[in-house]
Amino acid sequence: KEEWEKLSLFSSAPPQIQFADQKQEFNKRPSKIGRRSLSRSISQSSTDSYSSAASYTDSSDDETSPRDKQQKNSKGNGDFCIKNIKQADFGRREIEIAEQEMPALMALRKRAQGEKPLAGAKVVGCTHITAQTAVLMETLSALGAQCRWAACNIYSTQNEVAAALAEGGFSVFAWKGESEDDFWWCIDRCVNVEGWQPNMILDDGGDLTHWIYKKYPNMFKKIKGIVEESVTGVHRLYQLSKAGKLCVPAMNVNDSVTKQKFDNLYCCRESILDGLKRTTDVMFGGKQVVVCGYGEVGKGCCAALKAMGSIVYVTEIDPICALQACMDGFRLVKLNEVMRQVDIVITCTGNKNVVVRENLDRMKNGCIVCNMGHSNTEIDVASLRTPELTWERVRSQVDHVIWPDGKRIVLLAEGRLLNLSCSTVPTFVLSITATTQALALIELYNAPEGRYKQDVYLLPKKMDEYVASLHLPTFDAHLTELTDEQAKYLGLNKNGPFKPNYYRYENL
Amino acid sequence: KEEWEKLSLFSSAPPQIQFADQKQEFNKRPSKIGRRSLSRSISQSSTDSYSSAASYTDSSDDETSPRDKQQKNSKGNGDFCIKNIKQADFGRREIEIAEQEMPALMALRKRAQGEKPLAGAKVVGCTHITAQTAVLMETLSALGAQCRWAACNIYSTQNEVAAALAEGGFSVFAWKGESEDDFWWCIDRCVNVEGWQPNMILDDGGDLTHWIYKKYPNMFKKIKGIVEESVTGVHRLYQLSKAGKLCVPAMNVNDSVTKQKFDNLYCCRESILDGLKRTTDVMFGGKQVVVCGYGEVGKGCCAALKAMGSIVYVTEIDPICALQACMDGFRLVKLNEVMRQVDIVITCTGNKNVVVRENLDRMKNGCIVCNMGHSNTEIDVASLRTPELTWERVRSQVDHVIWPDGKRIVLLAEGRLLNLSCSTVPTFVLSITATTQALALIELYNAPEGRYKQDVYLLPKKMDEYVASLHLPTFDAHLTELTDEQAKYLGLNKNGPFKPNYYRYENL
Amino acid sequence: KEEWEKLSLFSSAPPQIQFADQKQEFNKRPSKIGRRSLSRSISQSSTDSYSSAASYTDSSDDETSPRDKQQKNSKGNGDFCIKNIKQADFGRREIEIAEQEMPALMALRKRAQGEKPLAGAKVVGCTHITAQTAVLMETLSALGAQCRWAACNIYSTQNEVAAALAEGGFSVFAWKGESEDDFWWCIDRCVNVEGWQPNMILDDGGDLTHWIYKKYPNMFKKIKGIVEESVTGVHRLYQLSKAGKLCVPAMNVNDSVTKQKFDNLYCCRESILDGLKRTTDVMFGGKQVVVCGYGEVGKGCCAALKAMGSIVYVTEIDPICALQACMDGFRLVKLNEVMRQVDIVITCTGNKNVVVRENLDRMKNGCIVCNMGHSNTEIDVASLRTPELTWERVRSQVDHVIWPDGKRIVLLAEGRLLNLSCSTVPTFVLSITATTQALALIELYNAPEGRYKQDVYLLPKKMDEYVASLHLPTFDAHLTELTDEQAKYLGLNKNGPFKPNYYRYENL
Amino acid sequence: KEEWEKLSLFSSAPPQIQFADQKQEFNKRPSKIGRRSLSRSISQSSTDSYSSAASYTDSSDDETSPRDKQQKNSKGNGDFCIKNIKQADFGRREIEIAEQEMPALMALRKRAQGEKPLAGAKVVGCTHITAQTAVLMETLSALGAQCRWAACNIYSTQNEVAAALAEGGFSVFAWKGESEDDFWWCIDRCVNVEGWQPNMILDDGGDLTHWIYKKYPNMFKKIKGIVEESVTGVHRLYQLSKAGKLCVPAMNVNDSVTKQKFDNLYCCRESILDGLKRTTDVMFGGKQVVVCGYGEVGKGCCAALKAMGSIVYVTEIDPICALQACMDGFRLVKLNEVMRQVDIVITCTGNKNVVVRENLDRMKNGCIVCNMGHSNTEIDVASLRTPELTWERVRSQVDHVIWPDGKRIVLLAEGRLLNLSCSTVPTFVLSITATTQALALIELYNAPEGRYKQDVYLLPKKMDEYVASLHLPTFDAHLTELTDEQAKYLGLNKNGPFKPNYYRYENL
Repeated sequence: KEEWEKLSLFSSAPPQIQFADQKQEFNKRPSKIGRRSLSRSISQSSTDSYSSAASYTDSSDDETSPRDKQQKNSKGNGDFCIKNIKQADFGRREIEIAEQEMPALMALRKRAQGEKPLAGAKVVGCTHITAQTAVLMETLSALGAQCRWAACNIYSTQNEVAAALAEGGFSVFAWKGESEDDFWWCIDRCVNVEGWQPNMILDDGGDLTHWIYKKYPNMFKKIKGIVEESVTGVHRLYQLSKAGKLCVPAMNVNDSVTKQKFDNLYCCRESILDGLKRTTDVMFGGKQVVVCGYGEVGKGCCAALKAMGSIVYVTEIDPICALQACMDGFRLVKLNEVMRQVDIVITCTGNKNVVVRENLDRMKNGCIVCNMGHSNTEIDVASLRTPELTWERVRSQVDHVIWPDGKRIVLLAEGRLLNLSCSTVPTFVLSITATTQALALIELYNAPEGRYKQDVYLLPKKMDEYVASLHLPTFDAHLTELTDEQAKYLGLNKNGPFKPNYYRYENL
Repeated sequence: KEEWEKLSLFSSAPPQIQFADQKQEFNKRPSKIGRRSLSRSISQSSTDSYSSAASYTDSSDDETSPRDKQQKNSKGNGDFCIKNIKQADFGRREIEIAEQEMPALMALRKRAQGEKPLAGAKVVGCTHITAQTAVLMETLSALGAQCRWAACNIYSTQNEVAAALAEGGFSVFAWKGESEDDFWWCIDRCVNVEGWQPNMILDDGGDLTHWIYKKYPNMFKKIKGIVEESVTGVHRLYQLSKAGKLCVPAMNVNDSVTKQKFDNLYCCRESILDGLKRTTDVMFGGKQVVVCGYGEVGKGCCAALKAMGSIVYVTEIDPICALQACMDGFRLVKLNEVMRQVDIVITCTGNKNVVVRENLDRMKNGCIVCNMGHSNTEIDVASLRTPELTWERVRSQVDHVIWPDGKRIVLLAEGRLLNLSCSTVPTFVLSITATTQALALIELYNAPEGRYKQDVYLLPKKMDEYVASLHLPTFDAHLTELTDEQAKYLGLNKNGPFKPNYYRYENL
Repeated sequence: KEEWEKLSLFSSAPPQIQFADQKQEFNKRPSKIGRRSLSRSISQSSTDSYSSAASYTDSSDDETSPRDKQQKNSKGNGDFCIKNIKQADFGRREIEIAEQEMPALMALRKRAQGEKPLAGAKVVGCTHITAQTAVLMETLSALGAQCRWAACNIYSTQNEVAAALAEGGFSVFAWKGESEDDFWWCIDRCVNVEGWQPNMILDDGGDLTHWIYKKYPNMFKKIKGIVEESVTGVHRLYQLSKAGKLCVPAMNVNDSVTKQKFDNLYCCRESILDGLKRTTDVMFGGKQVVVCGYGEVGKGCCAALKAMGSIVYVTEIDPICALQACMDGFRLVKLNEVMRQVDIVITCTGNKNVVVRENLDRMKNGCIVCNMGHSNTEIDVASLRTPELTWERVRSQVDHVIWPDGKRIVLLAEGRLLNLSCSTVPTFVLSITATTQALALIELYNAPEGRYKQDVYLLPKKMDEYVASLHLPTFDAHLTELTDEQAKYLGLNKNGPFKPNYYRYENL
Repeated sequence: KEEWEKLSLFSSAPPQIQFADQKQEFNKRPSKIGRRSLSRSISQSSTDSYSSAASYTDSSDDETSPRDKQQKNSKGNGDFCIKNIKQADFGRREIEIAEQEMPALMALRKRAQGEKPLAGAKVVGCTHITAQTAVLMETLSALGAQCRWAACNIYSTQNEVAAALAEGGFSVFAWKGESEDDFWWCIDRCVNVEGWQPNMILDDGGDLTHWIYKKYPNMFKKIKGIVEESVTGVHRLYQLSKAGKLCVPAMNVNDSVTKQKFDNLYCCRESILDGLKRTTDVMFGGKQVVVCGYGEVGKGCCAALKAMGSIVYVTEIDPICALQACMDGFRLVKLNEVMRQVDIVITCTGNKNVVVRENLDRMKNGCIVCNMGHSNTEIDVASLRTPELTWERVRSQVDHVIWPDGKRIVLLAEGRLLNLSCSTVPTFVLSITATTQALALIELYNAPEGRYKQDVYLLPKKMDEYVASLHLPTFDAHLTELTDEQAKYLGLNKNGPFKPNYYRYENL
């Protein structure tokens, strides 16, 4: 019970958290591959921005496994394992383009030219390996850290970027299309190396942390902390903590205020439109839409569609959120009240079986159904896998499910997350995340003895504010400073933090 | 230090809280009258809705002090002191009209017909005495309570309503235009009565509580709890608690989620337009406006003005709120960057001296300056009281301050709160507050021994959700219920609470 | 038939034109007073902005009729008839304040310092006499004209302003509260004066024109043109033209593009909110509203209410406007479909009996009904004057109509125009109108022989563009100029006109 | 001169008309291929909705020219020339899916079951051959017409759809990838056929009309009229008319009110977001954007971007549109005032050289430049083809133009229309167009002798209203009918037309 209270004290995760939660729970996954292919979509979506040429190169590549190749970079260093070191130039251009859209990390590099806050840090990382990650890694390096890196997903690696990193001297072990065995082999190569022992972990999903726990538990003696980004990984850390098995401090960066705002509201406000357009070319004007759930994601979706001229209905279980929907100008209904009339159904609840077969049976011909909420539980897709219904794949990520009477329902991404499967994550959102990760590493690495115990922490408010402030120049935004008199009046430090920890930032 | 932590644990009051804070701090007020005349505005604004005739009646009234009159109602009961019992019919109509817009209280009356959750409760109250308060009092009575009531403000009493309450058998001691001596006399008459001792306190500002502490401390032995609505009163209760002097449980209803949303965002989104129009008839389209502060009040003001075609700039000190302003489409500036070009300046910071003489000197001719934030500190009005500037009162609540070169600044409400001074508070907002008060009384009165200690509490989440749910029928809104399976999946009780205590509801 | 075509060629008046049409048709009015009291509202609303003090002065004034007084201004000139010359100082301040918000007229004064485009013009005017009109008159004077002026409405004169004009040397004949006899006497005093004969007419409503036609038809020989602002007056001119009786050119300034946009869309977008708030204090968030008619006025109302969080339904008869409503996100319904559920009904059709007794019978308790459209025909108010319904005046302009079962309908302004009766017209809108009038006078006065025949004309496009351009500096707006190459490519003159005459400017 | 006036009387085309104007002027094109490849984009974009599989089939197809193949449909009919009759089933499915989104044509089919308004009509058509066109052709057939059809573009034919039409008995002569010789051969095969002579022409671009003029001028003796959709074709018709060479009535459907609204405002409001996202994945929130031109397209772009949280500046040459921009809340600037600070530049002017090299030189690194306006003239792309600048193609339709100092400008679609090149045209918009074409054919075919002369006409208002009304059921929209009394009051026929011809429908 005490454990639970600690959990609820630190974690501010509302039920409808999403975005990073494409993975099923750690212990329940039926198979490695199944879990990964589920999450394949983000990788693709977050990376294919400038990589069409890159992908093309890939397909013409040879079929030898990277593990069977002997490669060295131009300086003779061979401590990496990637697809093809020759793709480094192409990857470097990708990284340079990404740098232009990640000004916060570039600013960190500049500010840290004098001091090296990560001097001596040995970071082992396991994340998607993309141009944006490369900018993060090269920033960590500029801050003084040494890095070894594996991929957290067997499909998401941009091979050219990995090549550029290897050419730049990073020990990277990753390629697109790893087998499960490759996956763990790569992680092991990052960790199990003579004469080098990590003292910081940067994880996305918890697999790296899990591997060290299982294989090299002694390694934790030297590790100063874990920075974890995903819902799944964070959940696992809280479980470890509850069980008394967490033996180093861990930073939950998934629930940082700034990251949350961007992952949920700001990102979804745009990706709902983008995802629907790319898959269906639907015209929004005049369409009747029902949005299930009026949390942050639902609010983003509703605002965007209303602005585009759709008529939006909302369903909710929580009377307070329901009252907010009313005051924002949305009719609050039960799903079946509007099921026959709506053109689009969007789930954003974090709940399961929000749209069930009974609802689907009532929908009108041509109704589009998609999920912006959580995992793949919200729409009961299984109930559509019955003999009397015909599935027709009309495009990538778009199925027509056809009733015996000819009625077609347009199901997107087979009920998985639309924003990850059918839209892209803007670099600016990834920049927020990467900056948060970098600051979390700095904080944990430099924290005085005793500040952090063997527990899971949220990033200190002040650091969160710092992440935000590093992104303001992008907008040419000028912050006002408190005068001494004002700071005294408000009882605040002039440099922040400006809000108490429990303050949650409202959106509009 | 521990005390401080408890305070910060329970109080979720952000710096820019407002609306109920028309009173200066308890201990600092220079004089009773000064403090009260400051708050006179809400009373007026929240009551003059349907009372023009009423006010008219007043002015033709006789000048005898109510304390010198002997009045009885039609049943021969004389345990009250009001202006004129003959105005009861008029007041009754006002109450009936208010009832129509306070459906939640009416629903409470209905639901409570079987059981009387306040049976045995003896409530002494000290609030504004308006038609809306009358609906609350008659609801408490329907729930089983006995009530005695005084006014929390010497100007705000609607005499006709007081008459109707007296005629209905309530012991009311209040009239418009009390002297300070009258004020305390009325409170004393509520409390100091033979054969009747209160067991519940409903206070707005803390004066009643203060009086009992000072004069009848023993009375607290029988008192089950205090319900306090105002920022000032709540602050005072936390101070008492810190000092170890709070001897009964107290409920801080000021910071209830639902009440906060309505007092700040939803109310201000409308009252900024209303207040500006009523005072200046300004056309919003194309106007350049700077809004200082992007908390809930600032967000409401920005959204409304943007929708009306104004070009809105924002100033902020907190980088997270600043980033939100950017993402919402507002240029983030320092005040002086735009000072020469803006047509309207609105403060919503909760801070002091946000607009100072230097800023005012730079404003262009005709610029409108007003405060939606906190108290009267945000605009340094004192700096305008200098010999070289001429003040010209052009309308009620509107002053032209004229520079030697002829430049005029339009200052509204002398820098006090625009939304209280120059706009009205919709009955729906007051209904949220009154319902919250009623439920807080029920909760404290019926709580099992030990649930509440001698401390200050927020309304339990579930009660807050109940307040919201009672207002949904107004919008013909239909809430969705969790299935058993979903409740289990989410780990929630089907009847709520649906969110953890620390969850703060986002706005759009 | 040909006449009709000419009419339709020149007049671009859509059916739902409004704002200036507070007067009933010229020939149908039952009585002078009746007609005038109908239009009293604008006068009040357009003038009470800064005149509370002024009105106050009035009431303490003596009761002698101005016609019986002998007054002279400080220069010994007595060729005027007003309430009280001593109020001139107060009126002057009002005029100075208005000048600050009418920059276009002030710019005209400046540009005309060199040449006097109205040199030799003798303008007789009959309009509302307000501070804004005074700015117009003094501008005409600065441009070289001599002016004599009467009021077009027996209630709307601001006495202090009239005094200031008289003090400034203008021959003004007007006061607040004229009798019908006074009204025509004043007009006659403007026209029938020895040694001075008008050569230009500026009329608002057609009464002055009518008087000259009836009494001094020969005067038209020297008159170069008529400028008419109101729907009624314009209608009358077209009738004269059809009948072949129009003996001078007339300029219809009512239908100028810029004036129309401001009178309808931009003004109503704000005044619907203002009018509803001032009369009912209703909270807009979550309210269900039906707007009848989706022309410019309807579009303004819908946009404003949607932005404030209302749920808006639209009724339409024209399928094209209906499709626009759909694409803008409004459900298109028949009135009775939503009658039981809506909280507010707003008519904007220009049609009659849009809301009839049958609809009113179905409305729910507390429903607010008002008219933003045309005249007082849209709501069948007569049908509510039946014995079984009780009317209760709860405030100025607000009636409760009470059904036998207690249901109350809140009827605003007795079905007359809400925006004129219960809101104000911003000075900026009046500035557009006054500038258009001034330019129309200049155009007609200076037009070469033969450009204008004995017909009714719209202001040339280029003049309309000039009105707009004179108002851009208010917004610090910077217009782009065509390069020679671009002008050639588009086939346009670099100085305009930029659009063909038939082009109607879209709104957003 | 008179000719010009006639032109301006009938054509209401504002300068910034667009969408259908992807073709250069008829006489100026340097080469057939050049012209066509310019317009390739719409074809693709308007068709690739459900045709990924289709395209795939294509590429695996044989290389024999259709002209060398002998094919027959299942009924033995061989009067067509297409790629591969075996693809008919696939094409049929495409047509069926399109039918579901073109309810207006389906409604026309139903209503025409009794009478056949096109009985006896022999329509020769030359348009893009897509699923939507097939729905139109089959509708014409259901209305009684016989049809022969060629493609108006050498790339845009959906081969599977052509196959389905041929299988259904239509004489179609078209395939994807025609040579110029093929192109004219196909047109000739439609027209030059024994025993069948067209009496109606449906053209898109004017090539078919041109061919008949050149080769078979006598054919016009039996032709009752031409329906033309494109800007170019319409322009050509007006030229013919001016030259006195137009020998049959022609209907300009390009400028129909309903079509215009959808092609410009409603379509662009969505396609600006879609086009930017698909090409750049840019996040809109907080971005500074300048939109050049505030006509209908500009208004759509501004509204959409503002709603997504961008800060939008506007440039204009017309003071009236400029004032509208101000009142809608956009700062009106000259381009160079904001050039250094904006993130995105969008042209919507219909003008040439709106963005020139000087502007491009000042843009900041990463600035996105695109054209939503007219043709490819708005951005001076030629000025970027200089040796010191490097072009890098980073994706389809996306070029980075790199300055010597490393600055990159992101140029979309090489300055051609973004909405055609990088977005899709929703079927609903195409449905409006196709319905307008069908009604224009019916009107011209059935018009009594003398109603239409040898001139170019706009669709009668009533027909336009009918197009709108046929699309209302899509939105479950319910139109209100005038009562007899109301119709009389307004002087309207109950069935319309409801507005005069010169009325232009405002947007919101």
